[in-house]
Amino acid sequence: MKRKATVRFVGLVEKTEGEYAYVRIYPEYEAALKGVEEYSHLIVLYWIHLRDTVKDRNTLTVTPMRHKGAPETGVFGTRSPSRPNPIGLCVTRLERVEGATLKVKDLDAYEGSPIIDVKPYLPRADRKFFVKTPRWMKHGPKT
Amino acid sequence: MKRKATVRFVGLVEKTEGEYAYVRIYPEYEAALKGVEEYSHLIVLYWIHLRDTVKDRNTLTVTPMRHKGAPETGVFGTRSPSRPNPIGLCVTRLERVEGATLKVKDLDAYEGSPIIDVKPYLPRADRKFFVKTPRWMKHGPKT
Repeated sequence: MKRKATVRFVGLVEKTEGEYAYVRIYPEYEAALKGVEEYSHLIVLYWIHLRDTVKDRNTLTVTPMRHKGAPETGVFGTRSPSRPNPIGLCVTRLERVEGATLKVKDLDAYEGSPIIDVKPYLPRADRKFFVKTPRWMKHGPKT
Repeated sequence: MKRKATVRFVGLVEKTEGEYAYVRIYPEYEAALKGVEEYSHLIVLYWIHLRDTVKDRNTLTVTPMRHKGAPETGVFGTRSPSRPNPIGLCVTRLERVEGATLKVKDLDAYEGSPIIDVKPYLPRADRKFFVKTPRWMKHGPKT
């Protein structure tokens, strides 16, 4: 059975500016943006290229230092950038579309990070109201 | 500049049963589940293996038939399974953890789909309240 596959980079985080980021989609994928300006929020999936290392991809548990009191936790229970597949996920607010560049708010990615997908945020599917998280996750940074 | 990368499959959708699905994480990644039972909702990223074809990965626009009145739209503005990287994303409710198997609700994936990542759903980052979508997205299926 196949145990891996190939992701293609469809763009990159061209620039960050405080809480804003500019995501540039490569020309060959630009058509995939048609109509995207109708949404207020986009889910951006990016490749955490700085963590695409053997060590980071073999990291299975972490102790989230930014969250006080966090115990050792499996990476599937954290948003740690060290994980078997260095895929970052941010729900961003779409500020503006200019050609093939998206200006978004709240994209927590470094400049130069490759983009692997963009999806619309759909409240009926993606917004959940009765949510439980461990106590240590309620304080400190949002992720 | 690098234009692609490798994703490793960390598990699979072992069984679906109505709105429930059983996600089995492979033994070598099981440690990454430590503490995951503390969350009520998990974001599951899976590989839409049936759409990992040249044709589907070169599909940049679609006309979403399941949504009445939808215009031709770029795939980054839809949750179409045909897209440059066949990555599916579902916010699921975690019902139960049994060893390395997660029973989840609302995972819209076929049996046999490879899993590429599991992330906790964090309301402070992932829940958005003032959201705009095109009118055609408000009716029909949730995605």
